[in-house]
Amino acid sequence: MTPGRPVPPPLARPILPADADDLHGSPGTAGAGRLAAAYGAVSGDSGLVPLTLARRAPKDDDVEIAIAFCGLCHSDVHATRGEWGSQNYPLVPGHEIVGTVSRVGSAVEDFSPGDLVGVGCMVDSCRECDSCLDGLEQYCENGMTGTYGAKDARNGNSITQGGYSSSVVVDRRYVVRVPRNLDPAAVAPLLCAGVTTFSPLRHFDVEEGDVVGVVGLGGLGHMAVKLAKAMGAVVKVFTTSESKVPAALELGADEVILSGDKDAMAAANRSIDVIIDTVSAPHDLNPFFRTLRRDGALFQLGLPSEAMPPVNPGALVRRRIAYAGSLIGGIAETQDMLDFCSEHGVVADIELVRADQLNMAYDRMVAGDVKYRFVLDTSTLQAPAEEADA
Amino acid sequence: MTPGRPVPPPLARPILPADADDLHGSPGTAGAGRLAAAYGAVSGDSGLVPLTLARRAPKDDDVEIAIAFCGLCHSDVHATRGEWGSQNYPLVPGHEIVGTVSRVGSAVEDFSPGDLVGVGCMVDSCRECDSCLDGLEQYCENGMTGTYGAKDARNGNSITQGGYSSSVVVDRRYVVRVPRNLDPAAVAPLLCAGVTTFSPLRHFDVEEGDVVGVVGLGGLGHMAVKLAKAMGAVVKVFTTSESKVPAALELGADEVILSGDKDAMAAANRSIDVIIDTVSAPHDLNPFFRTLRRDGALFQLGLPSEAMPPVNPGALVRRRIAYAGSLIGGIAETQDMLDFCSEHGVVADIELVRADQLNMAYDRMVAGDVKYRFVLDTSTLQAPAEEADA
Repeated sequence: MTPGRPVPPPLARPILPADADDLHGSPGTAGAGRLAAAYGAVSGDSGLVPLTLARRAPKDDDVEIAIAFCGLCHSDVHATRGEWGSQNYPLVPGHEIVGTVSRVGSAVEDFSPGDLVGVGCMVDSCRECDSCLDGLEQYCENGMTGTYGAKDARNGNSITQGGYSSSVVVDRRYVVRVPRNLDPAAVAPLLCAGVTTFSPLRHFDVEEGDVVGVVGLGGLGHMAVKLAKAMGAVVKVFTTSESKVPAALELGADEVILSGDKDAMAAANRSIDVIIDTVSAPHDLNPFFRTLRRDGALFQLGLPSEAMPPVNPGALVRRRIAYAGSLIGGIAETQDMLDFCSEHGVVADIELVRADQLNMAYDRMVAGDVKYRFVLDTSTLQAPAEEADA
Repeated sequence: MTPGRPVPPPLARPILPADADDLHGSPGTAGAGRLAAAYGAVSGDSGLVPLTLARRAPKDDDVEIAIAFCGLCHSDVHATRGEWGSQNYPLVPGHEIVGTVSRVGSAVEDFSPGDLVGVGCMVDSCRECDSCLDGLEQYCENGMTGTYGAKDARNGNSITQGGYSSSVVVDRRYVVRVPRNLDPAAVAPLLCAGVTTFSPLRHFDVEEGDVVGVVGLGGLGHMAVKLAKAMGAVVKVFTTSESKVPAALELGADEVILSGDKDAMAAANRSIDVIIDTVSAPHDLNPFFRTLRRDGALFQLGLPSEAMPPVNPGALVRRRIAYAGSLIGGIAETQDMLDFCSEHGVVADIELVRADQLNMAYDRMVAGDVKYRFVLDTSTLQAPAEEADA
């Protein structure tokens, strides 16, 4: 991997956003904006195609990052395909970004060119509400600014464009340091899948000897297993598929329970402290509640597009169990997670893809055919772009 | 009220349980057992009729209580009518007991004859599991012993009989002290309705200035309002019925929200820290989740017999909200609650009834026609019993 490689040169394709003023230096910016090679969708059914982005010149508080790697999250698929409602196209997805600082604004003291850094799901928030002041910017009461597809209030309401790109410019407050002892490609998924599972585990205060259940063994689930093991927990993985048993054990699970096997589920009755449920399809939670001990909790991370089966409050009442949700993690928490991963040598299991493999990778993600996260090598972005210009 | 009045004399009716040995002194008991006047059901459709109970002689750890008052809980109705599955009849309900100690076993040091005491929903538990050792006997992993209708493992597997009775014998570990500065009739409902709402408020750590929502304004709901106000919270009551607005304000609610009014519900969006939901009928929780702030919680206390509408996990995920259950409270917590009520002058709003009004009271409870708890004056138990013997 080459986190230190230079920002790619400007390309001769149509520039998005169209406002070419962004490319000229202006007061309060560090030099001129730059063009970035990218891959994104131009409509809900276009698939991903080569694009060129005009990235703004760093303002006083901005960090310009030469992106090395970007993880592929399932939400990228939903967003680019317009499955989560209307989108502003063109849309460059990607919110699991690792790269190297190339330039910084005049007020940036924490980061310098050459630093290895990351950007996750947010690039801004109101900075004033209780959640922001509590370092839980993901719950910003005025709405956080997503890394892609979001209106960027502090930048002329332009639409944010994500990490399937050679560079990005982000306010320093939403940039984290990436530890040097980890493979930066395998760090990329930590910025979303990692912190999304780390946050509820920490919120529940998981410690040595606690029993953690993990429902589903995809990008999030495999991180939950690794992180919970690193916290010293005993980990039980629930899966519907017997074929996933060896993989779960290989990841470090202490036990794998087939959730369709009533006897196996009964044997797990009241044995678990906290469950991290990573399944996005509607599914019955009641059998999982029964596996929780008193004061246990189930954190649901996915948002199924159809209704979940009803909850039977009996188990909740009889053992004071909580059914809770959790959304990614705050910026400080993301840094904590990276430091924790550095200390414990935790990264994602990844499959590196080239830009011209992105559409194939999306199809495989939808089919559940990935162990466990695709990561785009952004050094491959230029080649198809040049072909497109030929 | 007369908490110090003597145990009623034995009556000439059939004695239940039939084992008359209970009435003779035996080694390790303080004298002989006694007969108690009671009201209970002899079948699911018998209504409540006069009965005589043989209460055991106090064993070393037992406290014999001359019952002065017993609250009428909605679960008494369900249980006596067999609506919660098969029951052992005859069944004397009642688990909101206040009375005076009449005798104690040889190992009892904490209680003496003449003490004003209470018994709530439990008279035993395993005393060995984590929940029991944590003082949360209501969640006993081997099953707590309910005050009525439960198999009493430490007393020959006899079926426990509750507080619609002139006396009861209970292990000292499940007896609490009743503060002398409160009306003992109005204290009775604190033993179930009080601690059931106190426990989740304390578990959530409600303090001065927190905003507490209360759904439903019956026996539990009115206690939730009073207790939350005494904790210094701002209280918002949700009700479906405009007619309950004045009563809610009278109880101390700062605001009453008609839960069927979409605009009123929208105005309450993200304004509440914790909701105590006391409604036992199936109802949609999603509108209530929307009124919770980040890290808010909704505690459901009722167990509807039919399925609840599905939960939309969106609100849970987007604000890390918890949907939790809670079951009565532990013994130490029940004592804490009584001491708290003593300090803050909190008791239930009650309507005192005679034994011969119990069936009418049940009908009125089912119709929701009580503000807010009926309490049986057990001094009236003898009169109908004597009539029945005539």
